[in-house]
Order: sequence, then C-alpha cells, then structure tokens
Amino acid sequence: TQPLVFLAGPCQLETRDHAMMIAERMAAICATHGAGYVFKASYDKANRTSLNGTRGLGIEEGLRILEDVRREIGCPVVTDVHTEQQCRVAGEVADILQIPAFLSRQTDILLAAGQTGRAINIKKGQFLAPWDMERVAEKVASTGNDKIMLCERGTSFGYNTLVADMRGLPTMARTGYPVVMDATHSVQQPGGQGGSSGGQREFAPVMARAAVSLGIASVFIETHEAPDTAPSDGPNMIPLDQMDGLVGSLMQFDRLAKENPLHV
Amino acid sequence: TQPLVFLAGPCQLETRDHAMMIAERMAAICATHGAGYVFKASYDKANRTSLNGTRGLGIEEGLRILEDVRREIGCPVVTDVHTEQQCRVAGEVADILQIPAFLSRQTDILLAAGQTGRAINIKKGQFLAPWDMERVAEKVASTGNDKIMLCERGTSFGYNTLVADMRGLPTMARTGYPVVMDATHSVQQPGGQGGSSGGQREFAPVMARAAVSLGIASVFIETHEAPDTAPSDGPNMIPLDQMDGLVGSLMQFDRLAKENPLHV
Amino acid sequence: TQPLVFLAGPCQLETRDHAMMIAERMAAICATHGAGYVFKASYDKANRTSLNGTRGLGIEEGLRILEDVRREIGCPVVTDVHTEQQCRVAGEVADILQIPAFLSRQTDILLAAGQTGRAINIKKGQFLAPWDMERVAEKVASTGNDKIMLCERGTSFGYNTLVADMRGLPTMARTGYPVVMDATHSVQQPGGQGGSSGGQREFAPVMARAAVSLGIASVFIETHEAPDTAPSDGPNMIPLDQMDGLVGSLMQFDRLAKENPLHV
Amino acid sequence: TQPLVFLAGPCQLETRDHAMMIAERMAAICATHGAGYVFKASYDKANRTSLNGTRGLGIEEGLRILEDVRREIGCPVVTDVHTEQQCRVAGEVADILQIPAFLSRQTDILLAAGQTGRAINIKKGQFLAPWDMERVAEKVASTGNDKIMLCERGTSFGYNTLVADMRGLPTMARTGYPVVMDATHSVQQPGGQGGSSGGQREFAPVMARAAVSLGIASVFIETHEAPDTAPSDGPNMIPLDQMDGLVGSLMQFDRLAKENPLHV
Repeated sequence: TQPLVFLAGPCQLETRDHAMMIAERMAAICATHGAGYVFKASYDKANRTSLNGTRGLGIEEGLRILEDVRREIGCPVVTDVHTEQQCRVAGEVADILQIPAFLSRQTDILLAAGQTGRAINIKKGQFLAPWDMERVAEKVASTGNDKIMLCERGTSFGYNTLVADMRGLPTMARTGYPVVMDATHSVQQPGGQGGSSGGQREFAPVMARAAVSLGIASVFIETHEAPDTAPSDGPNMIPLDQMDGLVGSLMQFDRLAKENPLHV
Repeated sequence: TQPLVFLAGPCQLETRDHAMMIAERMAAICATHGAGYVFKASYDKANRTSLNGTRGLGIEEGLRILEDVRREIGCPVVTDVHTEQQCRVAGEVADILQIPAFLSRQTDILLAAGQTGRAINIKKGQFLAPWDMERVAEKVASTGNDKIMLCERGTSFGYNTLVADMRGLPTMARTGYPVVMDATHSVQQPGGQGGSSGGQREFAPVMARAAVSLGIASVFIETHEAPDTAPSDGPNMIPLDQMDGLVGSLMQFDRLAKENPLHV
Repeated sequence: TQPLVFLAGPCQLETRDHAMMIAERMAAICATHGAGYVFKASYDKANRTSLNGTRGLGIEEGLRILEDVRREIGCPVVTDVHTEQQCRVAGEVADILQIPAFLSRQTDILLAAGQTGRAINIKKGQFLAPWDMERVAEKVASTGNDKIMLCERGTSFGYNTLVADMRGLPTMARTGYPVVMDATHSVQQPGGQGGSSGGQREFAPVMARAAVSLGIASVFIETHEAPDTAPSDGPNMIPLDQMDGLVGSLMQFDRLAKENPLHV
Repeated sequence: TQPLVFLAGPCQLETRDHAMMIAERMAAICATHGAGYVFKASYDKANRTSLNGTRGLGIEEGLRILEDVRREIGCPVVTDVHTEQQCRVAGEVADILQIPAFLSRQTDILLAAGQTGRAINIKKGQFLAPWDMERVAEKVASTGNDKIMLCERGTSFGYNTLVADMRGLPTMARTGYPVVMDATHSVQQPGGQGGSSGGQREFAPVMARAAVSLGIASVFIETHEAPDTAPSDGPNMIPLDQMDGLVGSLMQFDRLAKENPLHV
C-alpha cells in the first residue's frame, strides 16, 4: 500500500501566478510529510447554483496553466471535464480527469474519459449508493482503461444537505479501485445560501481524518489563501496556512491505518 | 387555467409503428376525456444504470419518427436532450425539449435548450430542493425564452429510493411556471435491481392523483403495451390498456382541483 | 366506505371554555359538510423540544374537560397517552387513544392501549417505514382489540425536516386498518426553531388534499383561533376561521376519491 | 483527556454465567490495552420490531446479575431504562443509566433518570439532529445532574436504514459532555429483516474507528460469543473473539487522536 495522496488546490483557476503559488506550497507540504501530491483546479465551473456565479478561465487558458504547473512544479494535475470533447482536449494535459458527481451516470462522458487512457477520478453522484459505483466504473473499464479512482463527496440527505457515509469507503474499495475522500464537497450545503452553495469548512478536517483512518488511497481537498474572497466554494475551502498542520496529522493517521488494515 | 396535459408515451422509441400506435391511442384517450396530449419518447438513454442497458435508436432515426408522429397524429412531441448540440438538433423537431434530472444544474445545456425557443421541461434533480429550481429556471429564462416547465420526479431518500414531496409542487408553482408531475420516475428505485433500476408501477397512479388534486399543469407518465418486456423502465411504466381509466379519473380530479385552487 | 372523519382541535387543552368553543365550531362545520368529527386535544405535551415548553393541564383536569366536550357537544374525543398507566386512566374517557409517533415501537404502551378496548390511533414513527406498521399494529391486535387506526405524520428527511410519502397511505391501508393523514405534524420542522419546532402551516391543506384524494379514512388536523399565540405547535396549526372552507373542499375530494377507489 | 472507555457486552442479559463470562473477558481485554471498561447489557428489550421478539429476563433478575457483575468483576455497569419507575429501580444498581434513542425526547424519563444522580448516557434519537441534543441534555441537567453522555447511534436515512454522520460527534461535543459512538446500532437496518432488524456487523469496526479517530470519549459496542444465535441484535454484534484485536487497534487510534485534538 502507498502513502496517502492529496488532490489539492483552489476550486477554480484564477491566474497563472496563483496556481503556481498554491501548487508550489502544497507540493512542499506534501513532500515534507511523505504524502503524494496532485495539483487540482477547474478551468470551468459548469454547474454553478445560479447563472451569475463565476465560470472560470475557460479550457484553453486553463490547460495552459495546468501544463505550466505540471512542468514547473513537477507534480501531476487533475481537472474536471464536462463533455466528451473536453475529455479529449483536457486528456492531452491532465494526468487525471475528474468526472463531476452530477455527470457520474452519463455513459458517453465516462467512455470518452476512459478512452483518453488517463487516470479517471469518478465522483460518486449525490444520488447514488456506494455499491452503484461498481457499474459506473465498468463503463470506464469497458474502454480498456482501468486507472479508475472512486470518490466519495457526500450523498443527498434531506434538502440542501449532504451526509458522508463512512460505510461507503470500504464498500467502494471492494471494487479493487483506489478510493478518494472529497473532504471539501462532502461538507457542502448545496444551494444553501440561496444564490450559491454554503459549506461548513470546519468539518472538512473531520471528514478527512475519519476517512483516512479507514485506510483510503487519497484525500481531495480544496484550499485557498483567502477562502472568503475566492470566486467559488469559499465556504468549504481550507485556508492554505492550515494545510501544513492538516497534512501532517493526516499522514500520522494514514500510517496507522495502513499498519492496521480493516477487512470489510 | 387550462385542463391537465399528459406527456405520455414509451420510455424509449422502439420502432416507427410502435410510436405511432401508442401516440394514436393516447391522443384518442386524452381527446375523449378533455385532456391535452403531448407524445413523449426518448431516442437515446444516455445514463443507463449499466453499460449493457439498451441505448435506443439514436437521434437521427429518433427525430424522424417524432416528426412523423407530430405530422400524422397531429400532437406535439417532447423528447430529452443530453448535450448542447442535441438541443439544437432536437429543437428542429420537438415542441418541448426535456432536460434530464441529472443534468438540471448544467448551465450550458440549459442555455442551449433555451436558445432553441422551444418549450423546456426541466426535471428537478434528485439532489435539488424544490426552491432551488427558481435559479435553474433563471438560466433558461436568461436566453429570453420563458416557455419553461418545472417537473417533479422525486428526491433522493436514502439509497436506491426516491420520495416525491407534495410540498414541492406548490413551491415550484410560486415561480409562475407550469408544474409537471412525473408519476413514472418518482416511483423509480434507482439502481434497485443491481444492473438496472427497479420501480413500483402500482404507485404511479397514486403519485399522479395526489399531484393532480393540487392543481398542477401536467402529468408525465410512461406507458407501454407490455411494460415487462420493454427495453427500459419496465418496472414503472403503466400498461397501455389501463391508461383510459387512469386519464378519465385524473381528469375528474383535475376539474375539481381547478375549481378549488389552493393558495400556498 | 364511510365519509371522511376529521380528528381536529387545538394542539393542547387550554381551558374548558376554549375546548368547548373549538369543539362546537368544528362539530358544526363537519356536520354541514357531511364529515365525521372527533374532538382532539392533549392534556400533556410529554416530549417538547425544550424543557421550558408548556406541558399542559395535566391528565386529571384534561380528562374532565374531554368528558365535558363529549357530553355537551356529543362528539367522540381522542387524546394521546404516554405511559401504560395513562392508557388505563385516559381509556376511561377517550373514545380513541393515540400513540405518539416517538412511542410507536414501545411494546408495553401498545399492549396497555389495546387492553382498554378503545380505538387506538397509532402514529407512524418518523423513523419507521410504512410497511413496518403492520408489525406495530399486531402488537395492539394481540390484545384482541382490532379497532386500530394507522396515522402518517411524516418521516425523517435529513435534519429538522419531515417528508410525507404518499405511497405510505395505500401501503398502510393494505393492513386493512383505516388510515389517517396527520396534515399538521407532517409539515412540522422538528427542532427547527432552536428551542421549539417550526412548521409550515401553509402546506397543511396541501398534505390533507393530496392524502384525501387517495381515499383515506380520516384527516388529523390541529386548529386554533389564534395559532401564533397558541402554547404549542402554533407554526403548523390552521386558523379556525379557515376550517369551514378547508373541510368543505376536502369533502368534495373525499367523495370523488371514494367513487374512484385506487387499487394498489 | 482520558483514554477511551468501552461500553460493551451482549445486547440482552441471558444468564448470570453468560454475563459473567463476557464481562470478565472484556474487562481483561480492556485492561490489557489501557482502555476503560463498563459492562453493558439489557434486562428488557422494550421496543422489539415485532411482538414475538424475546423481551429478556426482566428488571429484577436482570439487576441482580448486573449487581453480581459489578461486585465480582469490579467494573461499572450500564443498562437501559424505559419508564420513570425503572429509572429509580435500575438507578439503585447501575452506574450509568441509558436512555433509548426512541425515548430521547420524553421529558419525564429524562428528569427521572437525572434525579437518580447516576451518569446518564442519552442516545440521540434517529429523528434528531446532533444540535438538538443540547436541549435534550438540558432536561437532565435541570435536575442538578451533569453526569451526561451523548451517544450517536445513527440517523434515519430513507427507509430501514441509518447513517452515522461524523459531523455529529464534534457537534455534540460542543456541549462539553463526553460523546459516545454506538458502533453496533449505527449499522443496524431497522425492521430490515421483516419481523426483526437487520444489521451490517462488518461495518461496526469501520464506524468505531472513524469515530475514535476524531477523539471521542467512549465506544458502545455489543458483543457475543455466537452472535448468530443471540436472542437479539445478532446481525450487528461483534464476535467476542474479535474484540481483543478491535480494542487493541482502536486504542492506537485513540492515543493518536488525543495527541492531535481537532478544533471544530
């Protein structure tokens, strides 16, 4: 078993310098603590709660920045895709393509993503059970690509609320694919602020630690130097200056978890 | 206020003759009982539970059949779209474009649908609250197209189960847009049969009647002459030979409901 | 099939005059519209959200008032019981004993209630499925008392929210016992106002109408001449001066529903 | 901060020898690993799914056995109470009285329990939010007794299913009272086997570990030498011969968690 890998970065790409600053800082933090690191950022927020939420830089400029991060910081990058065509374009650059939760049942995008040969991180739809993900993964695997990651990001629980069921992690792990905990979005309150989604940033480390203690492969976490002024997902991003402490403590739980594997 | 309109037909297009047979029968039933009628069928099932679920005829052949139904039976047609491009193509033929529930937060498809100038039936995501649909509708309305319909089809309720909250209908009606009850999919059990979704056909008339008694604009209901051998959604489609009785009784509730409007 | 019966009155007994006023008014309204009527009020609120919620008059004075209502207004009365001993005492007076939802799995109170020989209205626990009520009813029926009513009052749906699943009504009706819709509590927001429960009064007529259209036996509804100053459940009680209109329209739906029975 | 305490034993008391055997074994295991230990068993199962579920030995014989365990094994004991009177009787013997989840809003039993002066472990109702427990605790605290423990045992999540929300643990800890994770009942499937509740024994260690990693005070876990033949809760009890390994690994997570306190 490998040490924990962090998929971390800002919710959306802002500028080249901003991406570089966060990637550099996170890569250093992860290296210090023996963790793997993948830079995460979105070039387009395609499903904002309301029309006037900021969409992002667009795919062209976004991928240029991701390419720079990859080359200059030397870390792999992950970004989310929203159409079959974007799979092909983003697959030229990104090491990992991420399927958004809302799109996790759309067969064509799963196939297109698989066909790129890149690793595919599939977020579990908020409307899916953990065991439903086996058949979702099969769609990608049917392309001959088995570099699949399955990601918990919360399940609908009443209105405007998600709950992360810890049983989902070992359940998804039964597929044999590595399991990721999205600590940022599982504490989101979708649509909970009227025109945008709310969140409970203070619970992201809670979800991360509970999940890591079960022996997962990876944690997805969004971070920003000033979450409250970030263009999206501010309410649930972790301030960048808290990431060193968080990564450090999670790596201790990761080591202990991997020395004591759960058999479910 | 107008009499109730039925959006009804088979889950997916099978053959031209089959579509024609169902459209003719349903149009006659609705005419007899004073109901409006729109033929519904899908040319592509883009989000089947598993990869080996039948996908359908494809958009080209599908639209040809829908055009024939429109011309020969003389009723409007509704079909669902899954990409921006499909909006443009299907918008050449269909009177109503339907946004699938899983895609109800995808800004680009909502805009592309709106731009066709066709009526847009937006299914409420299983992960959305009824009041979230106001901002979803705004995305379509931003294109200058206000021919919007909002459709309840159930909300995630634990795993592999949906619940249809009757409060959602008057809540969505506050937007001023006509409200549709999808009696077929609100009794679906997503993923509930392992490799496909289960359903509780016997409850579709229950959901339809409860909703109609509240004074809604339209009922969406899938029907088939032999649901158990249909290529998809068999477990929750209504047998075609029960539709006359069902439409007849629902129209009585519709008249009573519209004579006694609820003020919520 | 019998016409709809209303179980209606204030949430809690306040004074003899107040009970008499409401019972008289409701009995007259129900008589006018051909509905059955049972006066409902509680002598003790045993499970308030917080300790400083008003508890009520107590069982002795409460039962005296219920007895007076029974004799002077000539209508049956229903009240809720919270212990085995209360079953025996209240069973001397009340025509119907009501088992609170939180207590719907407590074997001893179900047996004690059954042994009184009175009709027993069992509220479905917010934590139970409709089909679980068959085994709950069996506990009462084991005493030889089959005057059982099963009452929907909402199911937990995320935090501080309930949802009333219309499928629950015909599901519970399969037991053969009459089914009651509690239109008041199914729109409650438990604990939703911090130190007390919130509610959405405007949706109580929605829930009542949807349920009545399915052909149920009875509607439970709390009413008060001034809900906003009532000692409990103000946010979801219906103003008394709206009850005539509400009963009148529900009786129209009741007749139509009973002429068109659903076969589930 | 104190090391983790285990509240552990069989679901229900069977015989004196059986109780003694389990208590002795568990006390030894906990001592070996530096954990606290409280023997847990019920003298009466007052809310079985169906009438023909075994109820137990009764309070008199049950308390006699608990007293023997206390004296001979030298560990404190916890048992659940179902009426005010049982509080007084069981409070003569048990170190901790436990309020069942279904009864967690019943004011009188909370007050009666508080008045015994014993420690009170209140299970969070499946229908309550974590933040609702503050007002529940206030009912007990109003008696001058602040030896209160708040216990997560799962929240209703659709029908016949519970989910344990990890956010609930730090949320309840904000009250200042010690927090307990019930690893056994949070994986219960209430009513899920028709005439009895199902369970997912394999997930109990998952829930326990996730919770312990957050730094809680105590784990509640039911164990039996032969769960499949136990008179109740068999599907979610842990085999006794696995408890040594489980306690050992949980104590490692406990130490790490308490060295790295989360600040929520």
